[in-house]
Amino acid sequence: MSDKNLTLVLHKKGDMRLEDKSIPEPGPGEVQLCMQDVGICGSDVHYWQHGRIGDFVVNAPMVLGHEASGVVSKLGQGVTNLKVGDRVAIEPGVPCRICKYCKGGRYNLCLDMKFCATPPYHGNLARYYTHAADFCFKLPDHVSTEEGALLEPLSVGVHACRRGGVTLGSRVLICGAGPIGLVNLLTAKANGAADVCLTDIDQNRLNMAKKLGATHTLLVTSKDPQEMAQKVEEATQSGGCVVLVGLGPADINMPILERWTSEESLDIYPTALAMIASGKVDVKPLITHRFKLEESLEAFDTTKRGEGIKVMIRCAKE
Amino acid sequence: MSDKNLTLVLHKKGDMRLEDKSIPEPGPGEVQLCMQDVGICGSDVHYWQHGRIGDFVVNAPMVLGHEASGVVSKLGQGVTNLKVGDRVAIEPGVPCRICKYCKGGRYNLCLDMKFCATPPYHGNLARYYTHAADFCFKLPDHVSTEEGALLEPLSVGVHACRRGGVTLGSRVLICGAGPIGLVNLLTAKANGAADVCLTDIDQNRLNMAKKLGATHTLLVTSKDPQEMAQKVEEATQSGGCVVLVGLGPADINMPILERWTSEESLDIYPTALAMIASGKVDVKPLITHRFKLEESLEAFDTTKRGEGIKVMIRCAKE
Amino acid sequence: MSDKNLTLVLHKKGDMRLEDKSIPEPGPGEVQLCMQDVGICGSDVHYWQHGRIGDFVVNAPMVLGHEASGVVSKLGQGVTNLKVGDRVAIEPGVPCRICKYCKGGRYNLCLDMKFCATPPYHGNLARYYTHAADFCFKLPDHVSTEEGALLEPLSVGVHACRRGGVTLGSRVLICGAGPIGLVNLLTAKANGAADVCLTDIDQNRLNMAKKLGATHTLLVTSKDPQEMAQKVEEATQSGGCVVLVGLGPADINMPILERWTSEESLDIYPTALAMIASGKVDVKPLITHRFKLEESLEAFDTTKRGEGIKVMIRCAKE
Amino acid sequence: MSDKNLTLVLHKKGDMRLEDKSIPEPGPGEVQLCMQDVGICGSDVHYWQHGRIGDFVVNAPMVLGHEASGVVSKLGQGVTNLKVGDRVAIEPGVPCRICKYCKGGRYNLCLDMKFCATPPYHGNLARYYTHAADFCFKLPDHVSTEEGALLEPLSVGVHACRRGGVTLGSRVLICGAGPIGLVNLLTAKANGAADVCLTDIDQNRLNMAKKLGATHTLLVTSKDPQEMAQKVEEATQSGGCVVLVGLGPADINMPILERWTSEESLDIYPTALAMIASGKVDVKPLITHRFKLEESLEAFDTTKRGEGIKVMIRCAKE
Repeated sequence: MSDKNLTLVLHKKGDMRLEDKSIPEPGPGEVQLCMQDVGICGSDVHYWQHGRIGDFVVNAPMVLGHEASGVVSKLGQGVTNLKVGDRVAIEPGVPCRICKYCKGGRYNLCLDMKFCATPPYHGNLARYYTHAADFCFKLPDHVSTEEGALLEPLSVGVHACRRGGVTLGSRVLICGAGPIGLVNLLTAKANGAADVCLTDIDQNRLNMAKKLGATHTLLVTSKDPQEMAQKVEEATQSGGCVVLVGLGPADINMPILERWTSEESLDIYPTALAMIASGKVDVKPLITHRFKLEESLEAFDTTKRGEGIKVMIRCAKE
Repeated sequence: MSDKNLTLVLHKKGDMRLEDKSIPEPGPGEVQLCMQDVGICGSDVHYWQHGRIGDFVVNAPMVLGHEASGVVSKLGQGVTNLKVGDRVAIEPGVPCRICKYCKGGRYNLCLDMKFCATPPYHGNLARYYTHAADFCFKLPDHVSTEEGALLEPLSVGVHACRRGGVTLGSRVLICGAGPIGLVNLLTAKANGAADVCLTDIDQNRLNMAKKLGATHTLLVTSKDPQEMAQKVEEATQSGGCVVLVGLGPADINMPILERWTSEESLDIYPTALAMIASGKVDVKPLITHRFKLEESLEAFDTTKRGEGIKVMIRCAKE
Repeated sequence: MSDKNLTLVLHKKGDMRLEDKSIPEPGPGEVQLCMQDVGICGSDVHYWQHGRIGDFVVNAPMVLGHEASGVVSKLGQGVTNLKVGDRVAIEPGVPCRICKYCKGGRYNLCLDMKFCATPPYHGNLARYYTHAADFCFKLPDHVSTEEGALLEPLSVGVHACRRGGVTLGSRVLICGAGPIGLVNLLTAKANGAADVCLTDIDQNRLNMAKKLGATHTLLVTSKDPQEMAQKVEEATQSGGCVVLVGLGPADINMPILERWTSEESLDIYPTALAMIASGKVDVKPLITHRFKLEESLEAFDTTKRGEGIKVMIRCAKE
Repeated sequence: MSDKNLTLVLHKKGDMRLEDKSIPEPGPGEVQLCMQDVGICGSDVHYWQHGRIGDFVVNAPMVLGHEASGVVSKLGQGVTNLKVGDRVAIEPGVPCRICKYCKGGRYNLCLDMKFCATPPYHGNLARYYTHAADFCFKLPDHVSTEEGALLEPLSVGVHACRRGGVTLGSRVLICGAGPIGLVNLLTAKANGAADVCLTDIDQNRLNMAKKLGATHTLLVTSKDPQEMAQKVEEATQSGGCVVLVGLGPADINMPILERWTSEESLDIYPTALAMIASGKVDVKPLITHRFKLEESLEAFDTTKRGEGIKVMIRCAKE
């Protein structure tokens, strides 16, 4: 196989292949990117294993990957905010820009959102990829492209903390210490939260949470739900705010998905970038595994086994 | 003079002419409009009389007019939200859609805003005009194109009441009972304000305010500023909110203009339209004078003399 | 039985009696009230029928009634905001004033709230009653004491519409057209909502909703839940807000009650009063039945049978 | 002079004396405090030098001091939140608790606010003092009483940053690097601000700002106001928020004072305390001078000369 544009393609449930594609040309307002790093998200694994998430069904081959960074390799017509050679983080969802949600600053609710690696739109686990230039954010020299790729999960934490009003002196309970729980921890701390407690069913994840600054952790077991509820009640208070991040088990998937799709990005990349660039958060410890693009299948297997926190794929040829 | 596209052009300070122009073709995402009604705004008169507002200087001939409605006469490429024959209100400021302000839902702050009749952009006091399709709002059958043209000043009231948090039971003091003061009155009432007091130096305007629902009015005279301040203090209370709408005298013009330019439209046309369509506000009494496009100079003279409330120009050929 | 202070006392589940009590004296900061009108709330009936609501259990005889108005008959020490003879609406929950919730303006969450007719605190279905003077709101001359009693349910609507951000041009779906659904309708309209749709399983209630200004109604039947869900989805949109008002069926009673108790009054009486006093809402059509204090048992029976909308008891001796 | 309750009393403009007073007894809901540390505020010096601030005139002898901490030495009737021996920070303004502002969570606007060292209310530069128990906040063991005294200026920063919406990634310009400017710097950083620039006319203060974490400083000179304005404009952007903290020169004193009095404390002590207790901010470097209560006059002279940042008086007898 030649390697002009090595690309990870999901053909259908359980059928994921590395293929060589032609290099795409940037359209007006787009840039062509030489991809650098792409993190594997639970949704990537879910599409691979189940061929769908709710109403989003993989009916045609789809490139995976949406937590990504790249280097600008070509400019489309009219692009002025970037130049060739710029290292950028990629915000994966590009909205229509003309509907009422886009105009009102809630483009995350845009019904015509094109979101990487969400059918029918391709992701960016590839050597080359094109993207809307204004959804690429130039990284300062001291911020790595791995950190750039982590802006995507970090932005979930930024959005959730905003929605929940986390601020100076807040007390925060985070249920689940996976990658998303941990970026919420980092963001809550950066927002000035005084106490952050994480729960999980896995002690290793709680240990990582402790390492990243959790003030308390709580191992959840199935033995005594009443006692667990008691402890959670002690940790919370009236008038608080519950923020649902991501999707729960299958039986509540459908209604949530239909209405709350991708409430995650909204004007938040600049903020997430400022947090990393100013040293307020250190996301690097979240990366526990690294693979080359050629080793993508192995990387996905690792993620599927639930090992570590964040698995990162290096797309650039060494 | 033929009348293919009769247009009111301001050449320079004090030099305003009716001219015949070619009919413009709509670009991608635009519509061509057969103009219906255009209200004269204080800023139109100001450009005519002074050739500038703050840093915005008329350096080249500019078409006046930005409170407008029209009928769609041709669709540009890719337009799907409108069809030929639709009657629409025109939101006059079209932003860049890609800067952080646009993405964040505050496109009114966009530094690349193209605003009708603000140098160097043309307005729409003409027979034909083209505009971005998504900034044209289809009018229900029972809403007239005159009401459509009044959406622009009405939206100023909607935005100001939002910024000021006017809600059920609010007490509102409005300084000035000109067109903008009166749309603020209408909007404050529609928002549920319990008391709305207007001040002005002209008793006729206060009478109009009374007619439109003001609960109190206060004639301001120069005799006793201390007494006036006393009365205003009685009408207000600690913890209130002051909203500056428009621009004051020349010596505070500059700094305000530079930073607060056009804080007026933001995602508000649909709301303003719903207010009129549902009968919650009746803006028609605001129109006190009507002229044909051919009589534009006379219309501007009337406005300049300060007669009436809102002067409306009919652009469509009878 | 003499009638010094005829009072409706709930002794235990199913055991409600009219008794003569001594007239209470006002403490510091309190007023003694000659009670005028008291509406029957679903919670009054629930205590009578079940002896409890969630964790609130009737362990000792308790006076019922909390939607009430009265006339000031005596002032306690230090009271300056009222005088004898003032007609007032009574806000039924009196908080501690010193906890963090009270200081932060969310006294509705106060853990030491004393709420009328919620064990162990007495209500005000009686000839005479004492209450904190600053939770009594003087009625303007043109507002009746019946309307004053209706401030309590109306305030539920005001609070819910605030939480839900109902404003100019809002589209609102209200599930249930009982008294609370109807006050939400009135408030949503007064807030400027453009469309208000109510659902119910009772066509009579929907007819009342239509009469009070609903733009749409939807009769809910058990035949096709899928079709019903479809209709509701058409009436709503992404990014909306769901507000839970009151309590649902028993199996979700407990957790909601423990945390969300009485999220209903908060600084809202002045607003609700302004709405009525300014004529923005007319709550009088909500009263469908009237009884004398002596006929309280019959009044409760009527309410229990689900007849009409709001049953009002006249406490003052004719 | 005996020293039962050594107290610093301002008799009139320029006439400040140390006197021995009787020890006050706590009323209901109050505690008696053995005073520990009291910082000198600009307003203390202003009352001493001018005998007034705006409409607040020293017409009778008044004890100075309001940035204070103490140890509980006696409990008034009904006090349950504190016990003898507790070390506490004192929030200096005690509101009426029954007006609409108090109920609405904006007790800082209460018209009956009793504020320490604001005529006619005494401050707490004394050996013993009584205060409302719920406006005393228990300090954790590891927080010093000096830090407790600094909660008062720190809370100004917390309130200002809240009003200004300072959050993750914010860019903040602070005009003035005195004690208030510096606590705003500390709070803005703790809130996650990415860039904080301070201006001052004194390079020493800017050096302190740098030491406390300012990312930029700007020495203001009178030479070129236009150039200065240019620099400030570069540091800010449209859509920002201006927060006025404290009072400016005399000619704008009056109107601001009448309406905006003491917008500074509001439910903020717990937050400010959490910031210090969790180590998020270190306020100790702000204290540049320390005096004993007996040396109060010298302490005030030092403050008046503008030396250092915060002058602290130790009230407890060694």
